[in-house]
Amino acid sequence: MTLELIGLEGIPLVKKGDNITKLILKALEEQNIELEDSDILLIAETMVSKAEGNIINLGDILPSDDAIIIAKKTQKDSKLVEAIIQESREVVAVGPDFIITETKDGFVCANSGIDESNVDEGLATPMPKNADKSARDLREALEDVTGKELAVIITDTQGRAFRVGAIGTAIGCSGINPLWKRKGEKDLYGRELKSSEIATADELAAAASLIQGQADEGLPVVIVRGFTGFNLLRNKDSNINPLLLPKQYDVFRK
Amino acid sequence: MTLELIGLEGIPLVKKGDNITKLILKALEEQNIELEDSDILLIAETMVSKAEGNIINLGDILPSDDAIIIAKKTQKDSKLVEAIIQESREVVAVGPDFIITETKDGFVCANSGIDESNVDEGLATPMPKNADKSARDLREALEDVTGKELAVIITDTQGRAFRVGAIGTAIGCSGINPLWKRKGEKDLYGRELKSSEIATADELAAAASLIQGQADEGLPVVIVRGFTGFNLLRNKDSNINPLLLPKQYDVFRK
Repeated sequence: MTLELIGLEGIPLVKKGDNITKLILKALEEQNIELEDSDILLIAETMVSKAEGNIINLGDILPSDDAIIIAKKTQKDSKLVEAIIQESREVVAVGPDFIITETKDGFVCANSGIDESNVDEGLATPMPKNADKSARDLREALEDVTGKELAVIITDTQGRAFRVGAIGTAIGCSGINPLWKRKGEKDLYGRELKSSEIATADELAAAASLIQGQADEGLPVVIVRGFTGFNLLRNKDSNINPLLLPKQYDVFRK
Repeated sequence: MTLELIGLEGIPLVKKGDNITKLILKALEEQNIELEDSDILLIAETMVSKAEGNIINLGDILPSDDAIIIAKKTQKDSKLVEAIIQESREVVAVGPDFIITETKDGFVCANSGIDESNVDEGLATPMPKNADKSARDLREALEDVTGKELAVIITDTQGRAFRVGAIGTAIGCSGINPLWKRKGEKDLYGRELKSSEIATADELAAAASLIQGQADEGLPVVIVRGFTGFNLLRNKDSNINPLLLPKQYDVFRK
């Protein structure tokens, strides 16, 4: 069994108002790549946020007292900290050089997912306003044009508890369920699998991140081809929520 | 840029004393696959533990008082709980149906990584005794036979804080550094990347998990071909430790 990850060349730097669907279709044509049924497109969230004009001008922000206190503690810019607070539902943890929040969409991550990379100085990109909707719009537009059954996952690069380093992580999903519930299936010895919920969308995002890079390569769009779980997970009404652990079940939050 | 993930067919169910190197070489030959420079082999830890005879017979275990208390709380078998405690350095958290520990090797994960899948009833497989050494032995043996520059990563499927579902995770590593330190590199706008440590070995493990599966497919060996970071990360003395966050830096442990 073979899985292919194709980094789509020729995607230009995106600016507000750009139509991502058109950019992707143009790049596909130029590279002579035809989308196939069951292809999964992984899209870096910065590209989506920038096209949607979801950019913060830090100069416009007036830091609150809370932001000034946290900025001192973390040695971050107080305007950036204020932006982080405004994008959050709750500040989960503050350390010597990090702020972990729960975003308005329920993601627990550093800096509310606000990114200062790949935009001009003084600007920052928060996560897309509604990454599931961004994924859905893109999937439907690409399916309309190509006639293929596709999935789209919006990806971010996020740190984790207990381990060093960030990995590609799914923040929006359309076309397949992000979680593969395998409970009830049998293992190689005929014993029922017990803990068998696989965060497939996160695995796909991590895989894509091996290609997407952050710096000079700049390949924000990756196509995963040959994933055999596609049909099993096919769901045109899917979203990312099944991957988000509600606070009341989370032993690491009190 | 294209990355290829090849699930190696024809690996039989492994038993104590089996030589994994020979099994892999035989399967490669049967499938007409030749290893190439920069290939990364991802190996499911259950296969390694079983070959190394690292299997627990739960019938032999006498549960301690602590194990009996935690077993009641979690509705788990007290012998299994005792095995989990014996494999651990510290019990980190106990919930209604889970036990999270720090293993003797420093992994924070559920059940000390002890797995009851893919072995006969009454048996369980802990993690390999020393997954870095297992990875190194296998890499050196495969490099000797093939003359190619390779990396080997031992993988497990582990849950995460804050998110639902498990993903493929690296627990042993040889041949490349598991962590890609990109600090100092520039982004597309010439700004220095700030948070830029990527847990590449975990991303590779997550990618491989899309193929490895747990049930009837049973493809414990996956080859990643075409990863452009290989030469940059090449290190014949690498191990998994750079991915393990020391307790004193971990805001989610008190």
